[in-house]
Amino acid sequence: MTLEIPEVVINRLPIYARALSALAEEGESVVSSQALGDKLDVTPAQIRKDLSYFGRFGKQGRGYNVNGLLAKLREILGLDQQWRVCVVGVGRLGHAIVEYGGFEPQGFQIVGAFDTDRAAVGRTVGTLSVRDAGELEAFLRTHPVDIGVVAVPALVAQQVVDRLVGAGLRAILNYAPMPAHVPEGVVIRHIDPVLAMQSMTFYIKQAEAARG
Amino acid sequence: MTLEIPEVVINRLPIYARALSALAEEGESVVSSQALGDKLDVTPAQIRKDLSYFGRFGKQGRGYNVNGLLAKLREILGLDQQWRVCVVGVGRLGHAIVEYGGFEPQGFQIVGAFDTDRAAVGRTVGTLSVRDAGELEAFLRTHPVDIGVVAVPALVAQQVVDRLVGAGLRAILNYAPMPAHVPEGVVIRHIDPVLAMQSMTFYIKQAEAARG
Repeated sequence: MTLEIPEVVINRLPIYARALSALAEEGESVVSSQALGDKLDVTPAQIRKDLSYFGRFGKQGRGYNVNGLLAKLREILGLDQQWRVCVVGVGRLGHAIVEYGGFEPQGFQIVGAFDTDRAAVGRTVGTLSVRDAGELEAFLRTHPVDIGVVAVPALVAQQVVDRLVGAGLRAILNYAPMPAHVPEGVVIRHIDPVLAMQSMTFYIKQAEAARG
Repeated sequence: MTLEIPEVVINRLPIYARALSALAEEGESVVSSQALGDKLDVTPAQIRKDLSYFGRFGKQGRGYNVNGLLAKLREILGLDQQWRVCVVGVGRLGHAIVEYGGFEPQGFQIVGAFDTDRAAVGRTVGTLSVRDAGELEAFLRTHPVDIGVVAVPALVAQQVVDRLVGAGLRAILNYAPMPAHVPEGVVIRHIDPVLAMQSMTFYIKQAEAARG
């Protein structure tokens, strides 16, 4: 049944979970869809519709139980679990990713870092020693990994994605500036600052046109 | 009229433009919505619907003129223009952003880099000398900037966003792991790898459940 939930809905759930987590830390026990929506620039109707895919939460006019809804979202998304991540490409960006402090507290542990550059291999980044990318498949056979992060140049990104998928990974986070393909049953997310910028210039142009 | 175009549609246009650009480079002159959709994992119906906001493109059964549609999308999105970008926060991530080679060829020129860290200020990153963050507003008064990139720690991100908006910027790209707010009329995009990972674990869980 949950297979029919639109991907855009799934993509919003972590945002709701994060906002609820902040509310819980502030000691709030109840939140209305209006107040939650105000925090996130999402309409209350959208929030209610998104959550309706997963059952009934909250009572009309009473708002949501913060801890109850948070627990449910964490279960749906697997946020309470530990997930193992490997990073392929340890240039400046990959380096920043491996050393980024935001993953581990959220249950994402980076267990392997790989590069083809002989100067990088063997270097310590964070708590890891960078491995030769040639050892990727051998590593993945013996170390369970859930998510592969691709931080290599665009030209070799598809090849790296194919190798990760071939080794059995089903979730890819791609930082390379190209839309890598994955087969059915594999999920991929692209981190692409150029696309993000290009989606904003439309609005800058509009505002300039409105000012005349 | 264009004000009513859903943001998700605007967000997809740069992806279409990129795919069309690749087709043009390959010498393709016509593409069907089916073929374009296959390249992007988007349904042909979605592509036709998205483009219908901007007029009529292509003829039933004939496909789209690659160069014509690309030119139109580039005009809509302002992709032919030059856009000026400043980066606030030049730690490892901000450093990678400033040195990233993917912005300039797409018309995004980084014209200023700022940090509060005295050790960073004055250092050369890419072709820029890192400026003291205290000089941000003064810089923005004399140097026109279109897009502000925020690569500072979460705790100070909202404050930096507020300063950029206060200085007149209307487009923010936020790399900090928190959903910063902007007033009406300002557009913001968040680069958030944790949210991206959290939106994938749902599918990993589902696949594991399906295997039993």
